[in-house]
Amino acid sequence: MEKIVILGGSFGGLTAAFEIKRLLGGKAEITVVSDDERFVFLPSLPWLIMGHRRPDDITLKVSDILKPKGIDFINEAAIRIEPDKSKVFTAAKEIPYDYLIISTGPHLSFDEIPGLGPDKGCTDCTFTLDHAVKTNLSWKKILDEPGPIVLGSAQGVSCFGPSYELAFEMDAELRKRKMRHKTPIFYLTSEPYLGHMGVGGLGKSKRFFEDEFAERDIKPIVNQAIEEVTPGEVRLKDGTKIPFKLAMIAPPFKGVPAVAPLGNPRGFIPVDKNYRHTKYKNIFTIGVAMAIAPPEPTPVPTGVPKTGFMTVTMAKTAAATITSEIKNEPLPTPEELSVICLMDMGNTAAYMKASPVLPPRQEVSLKKGILFRSLKAAFEKYFLWKMKHGLANLP
Amino acid sequence: MEKIVILGGSFGGLTAAFEIKRLLGGKAEITVVSDDERFVFLPSLPWLIMGHRRPDDITLKVSDILKPKGIDFINEAAIRIEPDKSKVFTAAKEIPYDYLIISTGPHLSFDEIPGLGPDKGCTDCTFTLDHAVKTNLSWKKILDEPGPIVLGSAQGVSCFGPSYELAFEMDAELRKRKMRHKTPIFYLTSEPYLGHMGVGGLGKSKRFFEDEFAERDIKPIVNQAIEEVTPGEVRLKDGTKIPFKLAMIAPPFKGVPAVAPLGNPRGFIPVDKNYRHTKYKNIFTIGVAMAIAPPEPTPVPTGVPKTGFMTVTMAKTAAATITSEIKNEPLPTPEELSVICLMDMGNTAAYMKASPVLPPRQEVSLKKGILFRSLKAAFEKYFLWKMKHGLANLP
Amino acid sequence: MEKIVILGGSFGGLTAAFEIKRLLGGKAEITVVSDDERFVFLPSLPWLIMGHRRPDDITLKVSDILKPKGIDFINEAAIRIEPDKSKVFTAAKEIPYDYLIISTGPHLSFDEIPGLGPDKGCTDCTFTLDHAVKTNLSWKKILDEPGPIVLGSAQGVSCFGPSYELAFEMDAELRKRKMRHKTPIFYLTSEPYLGHMGVGGLGKSKRFFEDEFAERDIKPIVNQAIEEVTPGEVRLKDGTKIPFKLAMIAPPFKGVPAVAPLGNPRGFIPVDKNYRHTKYKNIFTIGVAMAIAPPEPTPVPTGVPKTGFMTVTMAKTAAATITSEIKNEPLPTPEELSVICLMDMGNTAAYMKASPVLPPRQEVSLKKGILFRSLKAAFEKYFLWKMKHGLANLP
Repeated sequence: MEKIVILGGSFGGLTAAFEIKRLLGGKAEITVVSDDERFVFLPSLPWLIMGHRRPDDITLKVSDILKPKGIDFINEAAIRIEPDKSKVFTAAKEIPYDYLIISTGPHLSFDEIPGLGPDKGCTDCTFTLDHAVKTNLSWKKILDEPGPIVLGSAQGVSCFGPSYELAFEMDAELRKRKMRHKTPIFYLTSEPYLGHMGVGGLGKSKRFFEDEFAERDIKPIVNQAIEEVTPGEVRLKDGTKIPFKLAMIAPPFKGVPAVAPLGNPRGFIPVDKNYRHTKYKNIFTIGVAMAIAPPEPTPVPTGVPKTGFMTVTMAKTAAATITSEIKNEPLPTPEELSVICLMDMGNTAAYMKASPVLPPRQEVSLKKGILFRSLKAAFEKYFLWKMKHGLANLP
Repeated sequence: MEKIVILGGSFGGLTAAFEIKRLLGGKAEITVVSDDERFVFLPSLPWLIMGHRRPDDITLKVSDILKPKGIDFINEAAIRIEPDKSKVFTAAKEIPYDYLIISTGPHLSFDEIPGLGPDKGCTDCTFTLDHAVKTNLSWKKILDEPGPIVLGSAQGVSCFGPSYELAFEMDAELRKRKMRHKTPIFYLTSEPYLGHMGVGGLGKSKRFFEDEFAERDIKPIVNQAIEEVTPGEVRLKDGTKIPFKLAMIAPPFKGVPAVAPLGNPRGFIPVDKNYRHTKYKNIFTIGVAMAIAPPEPTPVPTGVPKTGFMTVTMAKTAAATITSEIKNEPLPTPEELSVICLMDMGNTAAYMKASPVLPPRQEVSLKKGILFRSLKAAFEKYFLWKMKHGLANLP
Repeated sequence: MEKIVILGGSFGGLTAAFEIKRLLGGKAEITVVSDDERFVFLPSLPWLIMGHRRPDDITLKVSDILKPKGIDFINEAAIRIEPDKSKVFTAAKEIPYDYLIISTGPHLSFDEIPGLGPDKGCTDCTFTLDHAVKTNLSWKKILDEPGPIVLGSAQGVSCFGPSYELAFEMDAELRKRKMRHKTPIFYLTSEPYLGHMGVGGLGKSKRFFEDEFAERDIKPIVNQAIEEVTPGEVRLKDGTKIPFKLAMIAPPFKGVPAVAPLGNPRGFIPVDKNYRHTKYKNIFTIGVAMAIAPPEPTPVPTGVPKTGFMTVTMAKTAAATITSEIKNEPLPTPEELSVICLMDMGNTAAYMKASPVLPPRQEVSLKKGILFRSLKAAFEKYFLWKMKHGLANLP
């Protein structure tokens, strides 16, 4: 029986585990390794920060959802891979594999920028449940003692959506509370222009975000890298200083240490079109851990976003490829990656679709409407229900 | 009985006089000092220039409206203030005061730019009734002998609305007369971009004015200072020469000589949030005479506009503060200043609201619609009726 | 009886011939000289390239339509004019004239740019029937083997409409075929910005085209001159290299060799407001052959477009002027030139009007709507019917 080990218990890892189980049934022994015992619906973290969700609303216990499907769960951190021996190591265990799927997401590399990160007490972050819980407290504090807010993405970030969402949501909430004029909002980004999002413009997205920001008096500071952060001040490489009372700043992304040696200098892992490692044929990588070359280099480095939606697509392709190989069937044609994004904007919302992810594209859509907000909430519930019941094959 | 002296008989001066009278009745002796015996509804001067209004339509005699209210009027120019002695001087009189309210508006500083101003025969101006009457003749002449029109604001201007209005109104009128193609229109300004208006962008105002100007073929020349004006030519500091047949150019603003010594180097007077002089506690300053720091310095100097609407708000706060002090009551909380503007655009009109005046703002609106034109005309009638009857307390 | 010779059998030449015949009847001997035996409705060439028209649909035989009207047709190329002797020469004939009307259109000056032009096998062109027939084959090939498309205008072009149309039409067709993501489209132009069109912006045209291009992911490369073309690559003067699989590139325009000695260094002929040669009083020039100074010089040279619609207007003025002179009547006032343009955009269409052609303008319109597509098709049929029956006087 084939041993399949999956690193990561989020969108990619769980989807891959469920899919392989569904396709191979008892013919495979599947093990998920993750140091986080929770599955968190990350797209809802901005709502948690705003106070619209509690952690329980958007969290599932990984062991609870894997056990009924007969999938093993090792709740430990992987610390090393030995690809030539086909083994994964945790502090305590040595786990051999026939196939390895890496879906470890990003390492949030706060240390690259002096003063950055929740641990140093200056800035907040929006990318993990623990960070978001802390950021929610900072947000409540700003409602009592208003002052400038910086929503930012450092150089090397590849996920800009949450910062845009929070800018819109905070703007709308502050207006509702009649205190917007006491709370300047800065949107600081490594993107070369608004709406770039790491992929080079999605149709009219540049004009769309410029107009929305102008209308809402959110001050954009684009094409910038951060030199350091001190209490109450972001210092840019060009010398500009931006004072703040609340700063949520996304750090540079890297590959996580356990898998980085398999990847490029920043630790992202090169793959073929079926997400198979370019050198180690029994290792697959999906989601943020995987390397995608940007459509064109940006003056300040940015990365191509890998959304949960994209990661799920990748997981299905990787799972189908591994099962085809095990069953000695022809390999599947990978499904083309699209970006689909529902963005809450506080008092309205937007739907974006870009297919394929990188230009030129067959289809680009950008629509605004309050209905997309309900759609986003409905999708959250649906996805959590799907994961809870291991129904990863549903659309 | 307290002696209250008010310098200026326009929006600010009359409103302050009526309000103090209403609040203190016979307990105060109120004197308005102004060298102009007329109250002019300044927002209608562009209509006078276009030929839609005669001077009588928008003018009231100050003595006629003050006398029935028991307010004294000295129709002389103030030439000096001695704040330590609490006295105002005209050429003939020495006027002691317990409280002084300065609402003297701008000194139009034509002399700072060689060749500028109606007196030198090259350019027209739109800011006083006499100037506007003369500009109306120049406009009639251009209808007979068409040629390039320059509508401009020199460095140091803090009132851009009338130039925008006239650009739109002239464009519309020239099209109606089928002579627009013989009459290029240039909009020359010290603003760093269209729609800045001295306050740094009002929501989508930049795009709004850029689109309107493109659509109407009004050529913008932004971020410019004027070196000199010669007959038929405006010369910019960067060397550009703009030929014209009709040029209406707003000069730099300063404080008027009689009150300038109380102010900053340009003669604008520093005040606290109740419009009280930062040093002389019995002097208040409202309207253009007062100093407001710009939200951010512009490459070419511009000033923050103080509209009639804002000046009226300031007058009410100053009046309430003085009466509270006299009555030994707690001082009132000043009402936050907002910009509200109805802009005629010839074949349509626009409504702008920014609250507060300086960013970040709780509320920004910019709407276009022909109805705002009627609203502007209705407001003109209403305000003149209100002033005529001394009902400054009405909204 | 006056001998009137007309060079050119397209919009200008035929309209002038019909008009003079209508106005003078038997009092004039009219001869049209053209090396092309066909009248081609040039605005439909983009549709022919796209496969929506066959050559027969948009072509009339010149001799068929001139003969019934009693107008002579010499189907030979003019090779020289001797203006002092009032004679036109073909290889075989010597043709004397009392009045000469030049309506020879552009000489497509491929030789100015190494590698440019259908004859050299690298690039296609969209301006003549033969070129368009060949470009249609190249387009069919790209549908089988997709790759980058460059739609471009070299320095010195004065007709940008067809390139815009083809960019939109190809985008729409490729999306319909679900292959747009395999076919990047570049719009390369000597215009200083999108929507300039050689005339300096038509109202909101800049924003209109920028928005449409962003929405459709057509990549603009503006303000550029071409250095050379090699198989599969356009090299710009600034060093940029643009790879392509299909390139349709308009060459610089010049006057045709037979008439160029009468004109400026690029062979365009200077005229007065009635289209009469500034030196030779019995020679008139209309359409592209005539010189119009651009409204302002562009960084990369561009020319003012002379559309078929404009050329027809010029032909009527020239014809009326000549007949008035012959009849000893006062010369007519020339009708002002306007640009009117119906632009197919594949899945929609647009209507543009600019009057007069050069700014400032009395009227500018830019409207988008699918109805303009039907209108364009209807106009094509109407104009061909009008020409077939010699009814040039109809609007």
